[in-house]
Amino acid sequence: MIEGLKIATVNSGLKYKNRDDLLLVTFDDEAEIAGVFTKSSTAASPVLWCKKNIKKFNAKALVVNAGNANAFTGKKGEETVKKTAKIISEILQCQKQQIFISSTGVIGEEIDDDKLGKGIIKASKKLNNGENLYIDAAKAIMTTDTRPKIIKKNCKIDDKEIEIIGIAKGSGMIAPNMATMLGYIFCDANIAKDALAELLKENVENTFNSITVDSDSSTNDSVLLFATKKAGNNLIKSPNSNKLKDFKEKLAEICLELAKMIVCDGEGAKKLIEIEVAGAKTQKQASDVAFGVANSPLVKTAIAGNDPNWGRIIMAVGKSTINIKQNDIIVKIGKYVLTQNGARHPGYVESDVHKYLKNKEVKIFIDLGNGNHQKTVWTCDLTEGYIKINKDYRS
Amino acid sequence: MIEGLKIATVNSGLKYKNRDDLLLVTFDDEAEIAGVFTKSSTAASPVLWCKKNIKKFNAKALVVNAGNANAFTGKKGEETVKKTAKIISEILQCQKQQIFISSTGVIGEEIDDDKLGKGIIKASKKLNNGENLYIDAAKAIMTTDTRPKIIKKNCKIDDKEIEIIGIAKGSGMIAPNMATMLGYIFCDANIAKDALAELLKENVENTFNSITVDSDSSTNDSVLLFATKKAGNNLIKSPNSNKLKDFKEKLAEICLELAKMIVCDGEGAKKLIEIEVAGAKTQKQASDVAFGVANSPLVKTAIAGNDPNWGRIIMAVGKSTINIKQNDIIVKIGKYVLTQNGARHPGYVESDVHKYLKNKEVKIFIDLGNGNHQKTVWTCDLTEGYIKINKDYRS
Repeated sequence: MIEGLKIATVNSGLKYKNRDDLLLVTFDDEAEIAGVFTKSSTAASPVLWCKKNIKKFNAKALVVNAGNANAFTGKKGEETVKKTAKIISEILQCQKQQIFISSTGVIGEEIDDDKLGKGIIKASKKLNNGENLYIDAAKAIMTTDTRPKIIKKNCKIDDKEIEIIGIAKGSGMIAPNMATMLGYIFCDANIAKDALAELLKENVENTFNSITVDSDSSTNDSVLLFATKKAGNNLIKSPNSNKLKDFKEKLAEICLELAKMIVCDGEGAKKLIEIEVAGAKTQKQASDVAFGVANSPLVKTAIAGNDPNWGRIIMAVGKSTINIKQNDIIVKIGKYVLTQNGARHPGYVESDVHKYLKNKEVKIFIDLGNGNHQKTVWTCDLTEGYIKINKDYRS
Repeated sequence: MIEGLKIATVNSGLKYKNRDDLLLVTFDDEAEIAGVFTKSSTAASPVLWCKKNIKKFNAKALVVNAGNANAFTGKKGEETVKKTAKIISEILQCQKQQIFISSTGVIGEEIDDDKLGKGIIKASKKLNNGENLYIDAAKAIMTTDTRPKIIKKNCKIDDKEIEIIGIAKGSGMIAPNMATMLGYIFCDANIAKDALAELLKENVENTFNSITVDSDSSTNDSVLLFATKKAGNNLIKSPNSNKLKDFKEKLAEICLELAKMIVCDGEGAKKLIEIEVAGAKTQKQASDVAFGVANSPLVKTAIAGNDPNWGRIIMAVGKSTINIKQNDIIVKIGKYVLTQNGARHPGYVESDVHKYLKNKEVKIFIDLGNGNHQKTVWTCDLTEGYIKINKDYRS
């Protein structure tokens, strides 16, 4: 059990009828905090609030509401954030800037401050600590998600047992008709703020920032890492400390597994697709090609249909970058090599790949033969389910 | 009737059973030719052939096959192109490089040269001139298209009557399981090669290059403009000649109407969506935002469902550019203003916009309040039909 924090979830009445939709986490002492946020130029008010305060302040509380993104809500949106911070800071007797806030849901609709305030007060009266509360927390932040996303790992720093628990939500990169990607990782390690920020940044690039469901990125995406410092290890100041080896590994696993859970729960998704691009001349080329393939509706629909229509992968590679030689491109689906000398491999057997594509997890490997840079990303297939979820009129 | 060219279509047996799938156009004398091609780095062999020859050679023939893209077919693909050019150049007694070639269809499969050659010879024996042959031509180049795309305009240069006829195909920007965007425009004007090239380039940017069905761009996209020079006007050498005013207008209309026909016939499409971005700081910002919205699956599914979920437009603007102020963004759907001061407009009435979205043509206007650059693009909605067409296993 992670010492030094308490959790409560309640139904706020803001959006959902028969489930909790408000999460409150409080930290007994100040928790160290690091965060990574959406790069959207229409980022939501709570995101702007967190970004402004995260470098200077430690955390006394986290509050998350599901069902309303408080995005593109102008002055009113800012006031909601300030009111929320004020209510909690008065309860906890701390500074307003120590309250970190996330929202997820519909864009452009104002939050009912009265309901939110009452929900927070209700939550503050049932705060508790315990393993099973993390599942409640993961459930309370869901929108179009079909299942809660939670993962727990243990590791050691010095001889001290460290516990790390991560929860996340998200099922389109965004579906403002609900959804956004949110991730919260809690641990009891004693690690300094700057080191924590570096550890999170390193990990997010190859995990949360390496997934895509539909190429749309949210106004509200946030990943926060909290450390309550209660594990008893000596303070670690450098992200490069040898003592962090085990912790780093487990943190990386948690980020990656949560990211994959989000993709697997992608709106309408039936399959997890891993796309590895190697042999790129630059990191940007590797990333452009990987995301070009991952975001191609034609590649994703083909995989949904178990169709080894690998020409679509060639198309997606071609549209995503310049200065590559067709003859150098090697494409594999699973263990099957599809290309050679700028054409179909003579040993290609379509029925083998068709059979392989029936798996729940599909791997695509692309070597551009152009350099030494590499990038792996994850996405899901594109099915009628995605259209159905996102097309239906909200009311 | 455009003098100076002959048309034939045949069934080659390469792909389709009960329809013509091979188009041959020959020019009595040499036609001036200009072209614009895909920027894909995995461009198909016929595209590479045309790109190599178009600046130096005039056209004696155009040949197009539908059903096989001859893309990513390596050495064999190049040989097919050379053989095709050789057969036709021998029939017409001209240079091989005067034969322009397009293919559209599945990527990565070799063309049966024997069938193609026999088809060409068959076509060469039924060449003719006549209005209705353009419809046959537009049909012969179709793949997943549900209808032929053809448009005819008349204009004057000096006192000479000029006729322009354009045909096109395409229903995904690409669907290698069929499809690609191809456009051919024929006229009898007497215009020099360089001027023709400039006229085409100017027009393609705001028409064929301003549409998107699914963000995927083809290995085979090509637009070619032919001038048989038979109208009797004095040769026009400069694209800036005052005499071209009427011609330019009609050419622009043809390009735009063909481009819109492609979008309207987008795979699974039920609606044409026009997205105009104004007030951008740079042309790139205008284009990035316009295509960011046009390619957003969430915007396109919302419109498919007549859902005025305008927050998705804000999301798509936010993900597509940097350095804009939320307060400055004005979004309109049809005549309805949705935003003000970084939030929903107080006069917004959801039911009005819901009703408007039931139209077959939907207009979205976005003012970034950031400068003077403007861009208009066209796309279609995203429906279950798109998934169905692209998911089904080919065999």
